Amino acid sequence: MNKSLQEKKIGVLGGGQLGRMLFQDAISLDLSVHFLDPDANAPCSSIARNFSQGNFKDFEPVYQFGKDKDIITIEIEHVNLEALKKLEAEGVKVFPQPRVLEIIQDKGLQKEFYTQHNIPTAPFYLVENKAEALTYSAEFPFMQKLRKGGYDGRGVTPLRNGNDTEKAFDEPSVLEKFVDFEKELSVIVARNEKGEVAHFPVVEQEFNAEANLVEFLVTPARISAETEQKAIETARKVIENLEMVGLLAVELFLTPSGEILVNEMAPRPHNSGHHTIEACTTSQFEQHLRSICNLPLGSTTWLKPAVMINLLGDKGHEGNVYYQGMDEALGIEGVYPHIYGKKITKPFRKMGHITVMGNSVEDAIEKAKKIQTTVKVVAQ
Amino acid sequence: MNKSLQEKKIGVLGGGQLGRMLFQDAISLDLSVHFLDPDANAPCSSIARNFSQGNFKDFEPVYQFGKDKDIITIEIEHVNLEALKKLEAEGVKVFPQPRVLEIIQDKGLQKEFYTQHNIPTAPFYLVENKAEALTYSAEFPFMQKLRKGGYDGRGVTPLRNGNDTEKAFDEPSVLEKFVDFEKELSVIVARNEKGEVAHFPVVEQEFNAEANLVEFLVTPARISAETEQKAIETARKVIENLEMVGLLAVELFLTPSGEILVNEMAPRPHNSGHHTIEACTTSQFEQHLRSICNLPLGSTTWLKPAVMINLLGDKGHEGNVYYQGMDEALGIEGVYPHIYGKKITKPFRKMGHITVMGNSVEDAIEKAKKIQTTVKVVAQ
Repeated sequence: MNKSLQEKKIGVLGGGQLGRMLFQDAISLDLSVHFLDPDANAPCSSIARNFSQGNFKDFEPVYQFGKDKDIITIEIEHVNLEALKKLEAEGVKVFPQPRVLEIIQDKGLQKEFYTQHNIPTAPFYLVENKAEALTYSAEFPFMQKLRKGGYDGRGVTPLRNGNDTEKAFDEPSVLEKFVDFEKELSVIVARNEKGEVAHFPVVEQEFNAEANLVEFLVTPARISAETEQKAIETARKVIENLEMVGLLAVELFLTPSGEILVNEMAPRPHNSGHHTIEACTTSQFEQHLRSICNLPLGSTTWLKPAVMINLLGDKGHEGNVYYQGMDEALGIEGVYPHIYGKKITKPFRKMGHITVMGNSVEDAIEKAKKIQTTVKVVAQ
Repeated sequence: MNKSLQEKKIGVLGGGQLGRMLFQDAISLDLSVHFLDPDANAPCSSIARNFSQGNFKDFEPVYQFGKDKDIITIEIEHVNLEALKKLEAEGVKVFPQPRVLEIIQDKGLQKEFYTQHNIPTAPFYLVENKAEALTYSAEFPFMQKLRKGGYDGRGVTPLRNGNDTEKAFDEPSVLEKFVDFEKELSVIVARNEKGEVAHFPVVEQEFNAEANLVEFLVTPARISAETEQKAIETARKVIENLEMVGLLAVELFLTPSGEILVNEMAPRPHNSGHHTIEACTTSQFEQHLRSICNLPLGSTTWLKPAVMINLLGDKGHEGNVYYQGMDEALGIEGVYPHIYGKKITKPFRKMGHITVMGNSVEDAIEKAKKIQTTVKVVAQ
């Protein structure tokens, strides 16, 4: 007899905040979700019954963790591929597939993938080391991005002119032309084994330049219908050409001339989709679960305009976290805090997020600004 | 220094499906929730990190469980009151308060409470035993309800005429006049320590007579504005007169003449409030947490019309559960299954529920009827 969905074991590499929110939705379908994380105090550790400590970057812990699972997925892309390939060969379903993760772990392969499939992206060169990077100095400025290991703004440095050459990385990297953009957009798409594809509404990202993290995101994006269509088509083209199973966040630049360029992609639930928990018929976390379990994909229509703000650790604070002003924020209608369960705050550490729903985008933005001055993540 | 909300330990007596859904919402606020249940396989056991086995009806397990908690709450009302009183005396916050649970555990005290506070309810007599019950035979029919221990339709028997007297309970019980009612309604209210009270929209219950369980509930209820107002006022009057802290479901009869009578009450999240997870700005579970943590109560406005159906074990089936037709149901927009994680199905056992949202009450009802024919809870 086939195993029922509830009897299958789903292993998740990573036990951070994305895992926590995935776990919340998995409970509704009674999916058996197990986490692996190197940090014994990772956000999932304090809540999930099935949490194992082990480094998802190493072969042995991943292979041992995956052996008795039916489906393996990720909440962070920097995981051991050899173990995943072996598990896949032994019949475990691994979604996103290891061959997709291989492309995504390497920004060089990512860029080549876009080029091969005529997916618009900023012009680039691949270089092996600093010396090779400097041979392109006549064409500066570039953004130099390490091919491997970069995350949340790490592994990226601007090469504006000759003065920046000392900062250049001496590792295989991508030299990418600076993109003059009007807006940063994101489209989250999902694809199941049957090949069904669904996209969430386009969201507009606003970055905190100092922290180099998304600070504020607005949905629906304030863009033309034409741009919206182009952004959605681009994201769908990416997941279809990858033939990926799972959820994929595609980050895009909208240029002043109306071009859409792919910036990068993340094959998992994404910061730019957190508002879907409250603002869409199906959340990105449920959609991820539906896609890897080969269930029908859920409706992605939005119910109300929403703005999401990240709760970052305040600049001057390091220590036991305290969420100042949270009581007051909870008194405002349509305010949904998500606290990630990290005990220690540090400047700019992602400690949680708040989704704010409003009757219009403007209404939601106004409330979000109020929340930003009300709630502070401090050390007590 | 005061403990932050996230540092407080919240103990929940009971680890069933209500606990599971409470747990899902507690994660968003990073509340530390611990469960106590006599059944090692209770629905919370497979998901919650902090689950202890122990009987919540016994003094010692409750007292030991509660000693190191900051707040104790319940997801089932049949718990040991002596332990809760001792914990309360020792400074643990116990919500709902033991004195409220004492009233609610005893249907006789419940009826007397309504009478004392001029809250309309069906006429009744309190009797000590069968012999005393039979002294009222001239006034039959009555519904005889055990004062203590009844739950989900157990402990209730009709005394229609002399032929029913053999079935009469020989224990302290309430003889209640049959109520001729048009609709059964429910209003869920919440109250925090500050005395703030909030009510959810009125819901309309449809029972499955065979199973004696709510099968189908509709929100908003199809009632006049006047009836709605009366129902809400009655429910608010109940929680205010109880001076209870926590969530209270007040079940009501609407009589053909437009009277509202209180049927019974449950001081916890309730089957008739499950739709609030998707259909209201704040769910009943989050509202329960807000009330016992003395946070501002959340907005209770509804976003879309909703119908909730319980997933009961199919009549002919007992054994390892299988949710037949669930994939198909998940392909319908606005369908939200909640599976409670019970491994064994039995006829009429509550195995889960599905909330169906629609653009109108009629639309939602139509979809719900389709789901009822699509999804079956069977043994495999």
